[in-house]
Amino acid sequence: MEPLLLDNILARLRVALEEDNLEAATQIIESMHPSDQADLFSELEDEQQLALLPELEPADSADILEKMDNAEAAELVADMVTESPSDETFAAVAAILDEMEPDEAADLLGDLEPEQAQAVLENMEEPEDIRPLLLHPDDSAGGLMTSEFLVLRRRMTAAEAIQAIRDWQPDHETAYYLFIADAQDRLCGVINMRQLIVASPSTPLVEIMNPDVISVTVGIDQEECARLMRRYDLVTMPVIDAERKLLGVVTIDDVVDVLVEEATEDIQRMGGAQPLNRSYLETPVTTVTRKRISWLLLLFITESLTGTVLRLFETELKEAVALAFFVPLLIGTGGNAGSQTTSTIIRALAVGDLDLGDALRSLWHELRIGLLLGVGMALIGYGRALTWGTSSELALTVSVALLAIVVWANVLGSVLPLLATRLKIDPTVVSGPVMSTLVDATGLFIYFSIARLIMGL
Amino acid sequence: MEPLLLDNILARLRVALEEDNLEAATQIIESMHPSDQADLFSELEDEQQLALLPELEPADSADILEKMDNAEAAELVADMVTESPSDETFAAVAAILDEMEPDEAADLLGDLEPEQAQAVLENMEEPEDIRPLLLHPDDSAGGLMTSEFLVLRRRMTAAEAIQAIRDWQPDHETAYYLFIADAQDRLCGVINMRQLIVASPSTPLVEIMNPDVISVTVGIDQEECARLMRRYDLVTMPVIDAERKLLGVVTIDDVVDVLVEEATEDIQRMGGAQPLNRSYLETPVTTVTRKRISWLLLLFITESLTGTVLRLFETELKEAVALAFFVPLLIGTGGNAGSQTTSTIIRALAVGDLDLGDALRSLWHELRIGLLLGVGMALIGYGRALTWGTSSELALTVSVALLAIVVWANVLGSVLPLLATRLKIDPTVVSGPVMSTLVDATGLFIYFSIARLIMGL
Repeated sequence: MEPLLLDNILARLRVALEEDNLEAATQIIESMHPSDQADLFSELEDEQQLALLPELEPADSADILEKMDNAEAAELVADMVTESPSDETFAAVAAILDEMEPDEAADLLGDLEPEQAQAVLENMEEPEDIRPLLLHPDDSAGGLMTSEFLVLRRRMTAAEAIQAIRDWQPDHETAYYLFIADAQDRLCGVINMRQLIVASPSTPLVEIMNPDVISVTVGIDQEECARLMRRYDLVTMPVIDAERKLLGVVTIDDVVDVLVEEATEDIQRMGGAQPLNRSYLETPVTTVTRKRISWLLLLFITESLTGTVLRLFETELKEAVALAFFVPLLIGTGGNAGSQTTSTIIRALAVGDLDLGDALRSLWHELRIGLLLGVGMALIGYGRALTWGTSSELALTVSVALLAIVVWANVLGSVLPLLATRLKIDPTVVSGPVMSTLVDATGLFIYFSIARLIMGL
Repeated sequence: MEPLLLDNILARLRVALEEDNLEAATQIIESMHPSDQADLFSELEDEQQLALLPELEPADSADILEKMDNAEAAELVADMVTESPSDETFAAVAAILDEMEPDEAADLLGDLEPEQAQAVLENMEEPEDIRPLLLHPDDSAGGLMTSEFLVLRRRMTAAEAIQAIRDWQPDHETAYYLFIADAQDRLCGVINMRQLIVASPSTPLVEIMNPDVISVTVGIDQEECARLMRRYDLVTMPVIDAERKLLGVVTIDDVVDVLVEEATEDIQRMGGAQPLNRSYLETPVTTVTRKRISWLLLLFITESLTGTVLRLFETELKEAVALAFFVPLLIGTGGNAGSQTTSTIIRALAVGDLDLGDALRSLWHELRIGLLLGVGMALIGYGRALTWGTSSELALTVSVALLAIVVWANVLGSVLPLLATRLKIDPTVVSGPVMSTLVDATGLFIYFSIARLIMGL
């Protein structure tokens, strides 16, 4: 839907809400596509959302919650329950969760207080669909999977399988691929609907299924699951336990969200801030500040090392104040070269182009790149310094320092993300700002040491 | 497949190739999953790849090319054709392309010399599947779509539709969702296989189809297409022309690749380097250097403005050399605050949380965040300067400069990406390194101006 049109509808919706005409507001929302409903809904004040949600059809509320940012939806449901923790509220929330995909419902329940989650669960129609999902961490394949799937049997015929699909009434669309289990309930094959339709009705599935079925175990990280689905072009990934029993299915729409959210988090961390959990303009100013200040402070403290280095060389600085003119240029270039390296390495790690075993290869790669870049920058820096009317001794100092700093930044930039990964720290923490800050202090030390040698200060 | 196992197989493959035993090498490759074949294949030298590809079954070669990075695959095919531009080669390439999905085949053809592409096309079995795809830019929905799809008719019954699916022999799996066109070939509905199976055989499709079908026009940007498919949880997106005629279908696996590749490019650009087209370790050192040096140079030239500003304040610096101690600290903090802002804004733009209409809102957001962060940093900076034994006048200067620089960096960081978008420049170009460099020179100017005022230099 076009933004302009949406703004229009939003205005009408706000008027209806200000007039406390919940019925009109409900009608406006229910006339729209679920994704657009969620967009519209997110624009409302928290209190308006709280007032409106119970008025909508449970199926519509469910669609809206599924489409909202996870953190935002969890907050809204928690507010509903906390505001009036009555049996009526629990039943209303349960009715909405009944309409949601089990994996999404489990995510919301997981964010409630345990007693409240329990009370809602007891009001649900099929709590047994949800309960096992609550056991798995949010960021594992188990946290991502849905427990709503159809299991076929090896000895079933194509016609029987088609009948099973007819009898099955899923709440949501998932299943082009259907999974087949053996007598011990172990996953043993996969088949798609087209194969079922094309097969002669009396063929047993075991003869047409593909027995090489790719699966993940329930505890695997969601990013790894996403990587595998991307690699093998899968739209559904079966999730199994240690005995190969089928526990659930991860669908591609959830994986796309994981991929996009992980990239967002990486980018925000690389910018030197903790990731925001909800969309930017909806995150309050104080929250954004809190997410940024700790990094800014940490970097400030590290960066104040540069002052210590400069004081160490106070005599040299006093003797040749011109040395100071090149300080931002040199450390800036070092920081830039370092950021170029870390951002490449971090992304290569994230998409699986690089792993810890490649540490030496990538170091050797960056060392050579650093030498090439360093020589280039040294030549240009020498020229630039001379045209500023700098003494040839200082120009030489700047030039040699540029070479040394760029090589050093490339080495640091290739080693640190891998070191972080080895120490099980997210490699994005050593990117951009952290790199520049590290290169700043060490770069100054390199610069003044070279100045001492060349200029004999 | 585990990396260790892959290394093992790779070693065996290399031995076979060194012994010129192409048959053994072929057997090793053909025993593996297509995705793993591509991985293994990418590890080989270019000449080995060229020797091996024609030996494989065309279907296997097709799988490998589809799974390789697009640029790498295009290079390999171009090398094959350029090395020996004979009729035999054209026929061999055509046989491989026949086995590929039309959209991928079209991408490869688009990267060949026009005459060579023509020669290959003439050798293909169904050139009419490919030709229309060659007309669309790579990064549009038209460049992403496949022309291999099944069109159903409104008056068909469910039974007839199932028969049409049986008769249809696609090379690849796509179709859980099937699209329905009216008498003028205009897209008018969508149906899924489950609906077809469940429906009574004599029901006409028009009665069971969903007429609200979301589609894109052929020229739309691939990122926008990906965003819509993510938003509406689609696994296939129909692509239409201005008359609503169905031209092709974009499938989710291609969209996942687009989302991941775009995020990679954004991250590499935000690190201050042009994106690499192929995986990191496979990109030669000289190529990486070339992709980075232009940015590094441009930033160097901009950064050398800092020298100009410092020379402007040479007298002040000579009078109070201690001013220099705080230079890296101040501009570093400004650069960090700016990077935090740009990375958040750029990502919000990329995922559609923010658009140009929100410019004022985001500026106001960042202004308040900058004030909060600035006040915090000013207080801490004042304390830090005093503990260094700095004069209280200088400490005050540093403190006020910190406040001013952080606010300024936040404002710049929120305005520049939106300005870039407005000017149709990719907003990632004003991130990280560019931000720091801009803040460096302006930050110095702010710092020394405040020093003049407060310290009366």
